[in-house]
Amino acid sequence: MPRHIDTLQTPCVLVDLDRAEANLQRAQDYADAHGVRLRPHIKTHKLPFFAKRQLELGAIGITCQKLGEAEVMADAGIEDIFLPYNIIAPEKLYRLKELAKRVTLSVTADSAFVVDGYAETFADSAHAPLNVLVECDSGAGRCGVQTPDAAVALARLIAGKRGLVFGGLMTYPPAGDAPGARKWLEEAAEKLAEAGLPAKTISTGGTPDIWRAHETTIATEYRPGTYIYYDRSLVARGVATVEDCALNVLVTVVSRPTETRAIIDAGSKALTSDLLGMTGYGQVLGYPDAVIYGLSEEHGNIDFTASATKPKVGERLRILPNHACPVSNLFDHVNLVSGDHVVETIEVAARGRVD
Amino acid sequence: MPRHIDTLQTPCVLVDLDRAEANLQRAQDYADAHGVRLRPHIKTHKLPFFAKRQLELGAIGITCQKLGEAEVMADAGIEDIFLPYNIIAPEKLYRLKELAKRVTLSVTADSAFVVDGYAETFADSAHAPLNVLVECDSGAGRCGVQTPDAAVALARLIAGKRGLVFGGLMTYPPAGDAPGARKWLEEAAEKLAEAGLPAKTISTGGTPDIWRAHETTIATEYRPGTYIYYDRSLVARGVATVEDCALNVLVTVVSRPTETRAIIDAGSKALTSDLLGMTGYGQVLGYPDAVIYGLSEEHGNIDFTASATKPKVGERLRILPNHACPVSNLFDHVNLVSGDHVVETIEVAARGRVD
Repeated sequence: MPRHIDTLQTPCVLVDLDRAEANLQRAQDYADAHGVRLRPHIKTHKLPFFAKRQLELGAIGITCQKLGEAEVMADAGIEDIFLPYNIIAPEKLYRLKELAKRVTLSVTADSAFVVDGYAETFADSAHAPLNVLVECDSGAGRCGVQTPDAAVALARLIAGKRGLVFGGLMTYPPAGDAPGARKWLEEAAEKLAEAGLPAKTISTGGTPDIWRAHETTIATEYRPGTYIYYDRSLVARGVATVEDCALNVLVTVVSRPTETRAIIDAGSKALTSDLLGMTGYGQVLGYPDAVIYGLSEEHGNIDFTASATKPKVGERLRILPNHACPVSNLFDHVNLVSGDHVVETIEVAARGRVD
Repeated sequence: MPRHIDTLQTPCVLVDLDRAEANLQRAQDYADAHGVRLRPHIKTHKLPFFAKRQLELGAIGITCQKLGEAEVMADAGIEDIFLPYNIIAPEKLYRLKELAKRVTLSVTADSAFVVDGYAETFADSAHAPLNVLVECDSGAGRCGVQTPDAAVALARLIAGKRGLVFGGLMTYPPAGDAPGARKWLEEAAEKLAEAGLPAKTISTGGTPDIWRAHETTIATEYRPGTYIYYDRSLVARGVATVEDCALNVLVTVVSRPTETRAIIDAGSKALTSDLLGMTGYGQVLGYPDAVIYGLSEEHGNIDFTASATKPKVGERLRILPNHACPVSNLFDHVNLVSGDHVVETIEVAARGRVD
């Protein structure tokens, strides 16, 4: 008989298996219908369990943001990993080379400095070259070459290095600006073709634009992360409904110091300080008018002024966090649940892999 | 020969041992000079190593915010622990009772519900009663009874329970409002004395007001946490200088996509999203005019427009975080350094103890 969630100690993470499965299936169906390959970003769940399920459903591989995450996934048997990050410094390049021996590995670069590091490391690997995509800043303003011409120049540099192979283009599009990113990528792809360096892969991503992935017709793969769980920020953006959200934090009301104030046993160490432009640090399920107006590290302050019924001390609440991904990173374990029962409690194997 | 920090992989945490030692010593000297007992809050470092050092220097015990942290510290041999938190639910009360068998333990309560839970759990422990302080909301607006009269009533309830003993008053004063908190506590202490329930301990705390701890003359102990490391927020408040700050995050510039923008390999997963009312997500040491204007999980965006010299790709930077405590919680290990050399890399034993 599976444990009831009432027996769990709080705060803890609940992941609804049925919802996660439905979210994965819906995105895979969408990708299949539009001829886009999925390469899910595991930063959201950090679990080999779900990475394997994503592959079973049709994903062509996974995306990791840090080398340490990729190492955990390789240890778990994942065979195709994209690491869209500039890997720098001898110790990390050594780890990268070791990793490339056991998985099909791709990375990105956005400068000659980064390409030179890869080339030096893989100079003796011409038989199994490292696949390097050029990261493009198509509007998000983070990493990436600034112009299609710069993308072509860097592609040429990569293609000319022994031990490296030019793999294509990668970008992280700005939310809601897929058309701008598309134009950027189309121009770069055209110039690459003219230069005799066709982009094998054009990789875009991000859950906020997941249902518009097909609009970037030139893209060959998409890297959504949060779509497995969704979260309050994605509900606010209209990408999913509260009922789609698979990750909650189960908390306990530890104090009711006033008629309207409740204090829960989850603060920024459980929910993070991420506001993502919203008001409040999460949504109290079942109390739509409650506002989580403040967090300290181990306490959350909730205003129940507008709620007709108010919880008692000792009552448990489910919080939909603003941002699911960093919550996964704060817990050593998550509880996979079906309804109100715990199917399994598993370690967040790729948690805390900072480098 | 100790390792140079240049050989560390980034992002990683550097803790300057000499600065931490000076910070601990200065606070202990202050406490000794003013007759206040220190009971440091270990939430900042989460390390038995420093907890033991705090005790060696004269602290009377430690403070932990969560049961899991207290268990780690007890495992490490710490013998006197204050847990200023309402512990609720059978599983946690069981752990609390187990913990009470091996350390001198104190807890808090701010409602009859919480007191009843302790009383039920410790009813058969009249020979070794649990020390329960009343948490007072003296202005911070978090947990705590709302009036001195309510404090007396709860003290009376505690004192009347077999297996419990009334231990005094605890508050977390609002920053910069020590006089208000003082008046509250004085009134409560007076009424408790009149009721024949004198407060053995009156515990206040918080690093922001550390140098004003003596103004609350009625307080017998003080629970500072961040004073061991300080951070950018405490420099902004005038409590410490940048040169006092003992915890930095060592990062690498992974991209310089434009003339003025740099991207570092530390985002909210290393620095947290805590702004604490400030502009920017940390201070770039050596580049006083640089602004960390944005974080995603694994990237930090820095504007170097106002900096005459700008870092190159591959250059390492030291970041003074806004808030040291949650940074400790994000890393499995910290590097204890002296100057630019690593003395020891130790596990953050009480990291991630969410419950």
